[in-house]
Amino acid sequence: MAQPARTAGPLRYSLPMKKTTPKNAFYAQSGGVSAVINASACGVIETALRSRHINRVYAGRHGIIGALTEDLIDVNRESAATIRALRHTPAGAFGSARFKLKGLEQNRAEYERLIEVFRAHDIGYFFYNGGNDSMDTALKVSQIGASLGFPITCVGVPKTVDNDLPHTDCCPGFGSVAKYVAVSTREAALDVASMARTSTKVFVLEVMGRHAGWIAAAGGLAGHGLDEPPHIILFPEVAFDGQRFLERVRQSVTDYGYCVIIASEGAAYADGKFLADAGTRDAFGHTQLGGVAPVIANMVREAHGYKYHWAVADYLQRSARHIASRVDVEQAYAVGKAAVELAVKGVNAVMPTIVRKSSRPYRWTIGHAPLAAVANKEKKVPREYIRADGFGITAACRRYLEPLIAGEAYPPYRDGLPDYVRIKGVPVRRKLTTQYQVK
Amino acid sequence: MAQPARTAGPLRYSLPMKKTTPKNAFYAQSGGVSAVINASACGVIETALRSRHINRVYAGRHGIIGALTEDLIDVNRESAATIRALRHTPAGAFGSARFKLKGLEQNRAEYERLIEVFRAHDIGYFFYNGGNDSMDTALKVSQIGASLGFPITCVGVPKTVDNDLPHTDCCPGFGSVAKYVAVSTREAALDVASMARTSTKVFVLEVMGRHAGWIAAAGGLAGHGLDEPPHIILFPEVAFDGQRFLERVRQSVTDYGYCVIIASEGAAYADGKFLADAGTRDAFGHTQLGGVAPVIANMVREAHGYKYHWAVADYLQRSARHIASRVDVEQAYAVGKAAVELAVKGVNAVMPTIVRKSSRPYRWTIGHAPLAAVANKEKKVPREYIRADGFGITAACRRYLEPLIAGEAYPPYRDGLPDYVRIKGVPVRRKLTTQYQVK
Repeated sequence: MAQPARTAGPLRYSLPMKKTTPKNAFYAQSGGVSAVINASACGVIETALRSRHINRVYAGRHGIIGALTEDLIDVNRESAATIRALRHTPAGAFGSARFKLKGLEQNRAEYERLIEVFRAHDIGYFFYNGGNDSMDTALKVSQIGASLGFPITCVGVPKTVDNDLPHTDCCPGFGSVAKYVAVSTREAALDVASMARTSTKVFVLEVMGRHAGWIAAAGGLAGHGLDEPPHIILFPEVAFDGQRFLERVRQSVTDYGYCVIIASEGAAYADGKFLADAGTRDAFGHTQLGGVAPVIANMVREAHGYKYHWAVADYLQRSARHIASRVDVEQAYAVGKAAVELAVKGVNAVMPTIVRKSSRPYRWTIGHAPLAAVANKEKKVPREYIRADGFGITAACRRYLEPLIAGEAYPPYRDGLPDYVRIKGVPVRRKLTTQYQVK
Repeated sequence: MAQPARTAGPLRYSLPMKKTTPKNAFYAQSGGVSAVINASACGVIETALRSRHINRVYAGRHGIIGALTEDLIDVNRESAATIRALRHTPAGAFGSARFKLKGLEQNRAEYERLIEVFRAHDIGYFFYNGGNDSMDTALKVSQIGASLGFPITCVGVPKTVDNDLPHTDCCPGFGSVAKYVAVSTREAALDVASMARTSTKVFVLEVMGRHAGWIAAAGGLAGHGLDEPPHIILFPEVAFDGQRFLERVRQSVTDYGYCVIIASEGAAYADGKFLADAGTRDAFGHTQLGGVAPVIANMVREAHGYKYHWAVADYLQRSARHIASRVDVEQAYAVGKAAVELAVKGVNAVMPTIVRKSSRPYRWTIGHAPLAAVANKEKKVPREYIRADGFGITAACRRYLEPLIAGEAYPPYRDGLPDYVRIKGVPVRRKLTTQYQVK
């Protein structure tokens, strides 16, 4: 049983420490969402609500847009059960935004507007849950706040299914999409193997990762050895060579009876041109924007005539909370919690990181890195994680990836479907008379 | 605690009943596989191994092809643990085949060859696990066996993700793909809702069902009411009207901020032409066979300019044992078990069916129907299950579908991945010197 809250009151102020006036906190989600970004929100919010340094907790409706337009959600108005349920609810419960603040020189007004809103709502802590771009924004906000005489503690909360943030061993969001892709690859490969004798011989699964092949690499966890699927992985990090690829497909079908291919959406030719931009056109001659999977499947058909199937997982892969990695959920919560703990200690312009202590058994802890070191940088799959032939993962890569998909963290179900939560989203009363038009 | 097996032995032969010489049984998987066809295999095999009327259990390697080429798998050589694990393993563990036997008139030799192999291996029971076509084959085998003086008891075991077999309330395999589609729709829709303010406004998920819209209908379980996703379902049963569709998309984006669309691969114009065959071409002008999802997404882009994403679930949906419906797994096992129980009672040329006793609470039992009534017939989604506007499901449809996705039946995991079983697949020694070339 928890200690009655009223006894905490008197004690709190009797402690002989520097008395700070509690400030409000602002949390926002940014960029493409994931299966566990709300678990980070849960970590931030539960920790902030318990902190004596933080008064009220606000969230941006649709991320930073909510701050610019003074459309804040009053998180204190949500029930404890709702906040707890965020841990098992995918996507961005508060709304996210693909909105990159321009450089300070180009659009100083945006930053000044943010500070205006933060000042009006007495916000002293800014938690920005996103990827590379967002870390850059959080850094700039901390700088402009100081220069405008409104110092604000800005802590980034890492999130990206692409796993491409530097200075952290992995990124919350990645482990769950990795598990989804590994599981789906194993399952679909069993299907193809069943049918290959008389039907489909080649199967292509397209996965996310425009610039880094981490998600594609995760597909490699589905099998061991050259004879087990996936037989081919196409990484953005390895220039696509059509002839070598088609020869490998033929060899796989000859040797094993079928061929399972994981294709990163970022698979590209040596000149950097994406396979997906091969210029397919509809019946009217209009360019059709589309996946890499059908492009590859057509190549195979034209070269070999094999019957094929292809799948494009798209948003399914990054929202698949039903098959989330337990490790990923725990890490997502932990970075949210750590962000608040760092902020209330006065640590500014940092991002909590995940530090690997050992792989087998897997042990990790939380560290932190300066935002300046993280912002706008990308971590690609290193060459030693990609097999010499460029079509698979190495043992080192498996050792890195395997712990990240470990454990299951099933959501509760009702009527056969996951019981995901929706926030009430009560707006905070506006204090400014000024409007801001988001361009 | 189970009764010790040794006491069963003596008792068995002391019963005063007609003594029949045990025969061998042959089991084969047919057509597209599912997440639970192996659960039916498990039901057939476990029941057959326990039956005193059945001697050995054989399976066709790659379905009926295995019978024609005398490539039989000795199921008795598999461990009890392997057989048990089939219940949680997707796809066709013995290999399936897309191979429809021709009519008796066109290719009598195929049927005679089957009887030749069955006679050589003393097979008295034929269990054929498949859809409409397979029930037709099983019926013909029973007829030709009798006419050739080698009577064989043929029982079909229903399996089709398409849910289009008549005389059964539902088809094993469907409940799990329905659950996959409903769960994925709910999850992806949360993703789109998070992003719609600044990014993707329209999301299209393509699902299976070339002629019947049952799988597409299952997507409708993800939400309630017009304002909840999916906002539009495209059924094969409803002629596609581009103008009405585009107007509904615009309305959904205007009213709710986004639009989630479930498109059956069988969505077609009034003249029967599939949307997927719209004739998209690659850069070289070659026809590109492809999904309906990119075709629809392009329509939306050209009409409205909305940012869109699309996914094609393809084999992922029908192999997704990790999110199987518990009801589906139980029914798949039950029809396999019932098939054997019927056969050893001498009931010939039938298929066990699932009989619904009530929807709320859901109660069902096993019945059976003559193969002649099932073969080559298709059950489409009735009009009263489709909303008047053609874009959604009715309350009656929800009442029908909801019990079929009820309950979870998670497979065991190892190293973060489902621990699916592989059979040893020991071949039965050939007895025939004749070869058979499958055309």
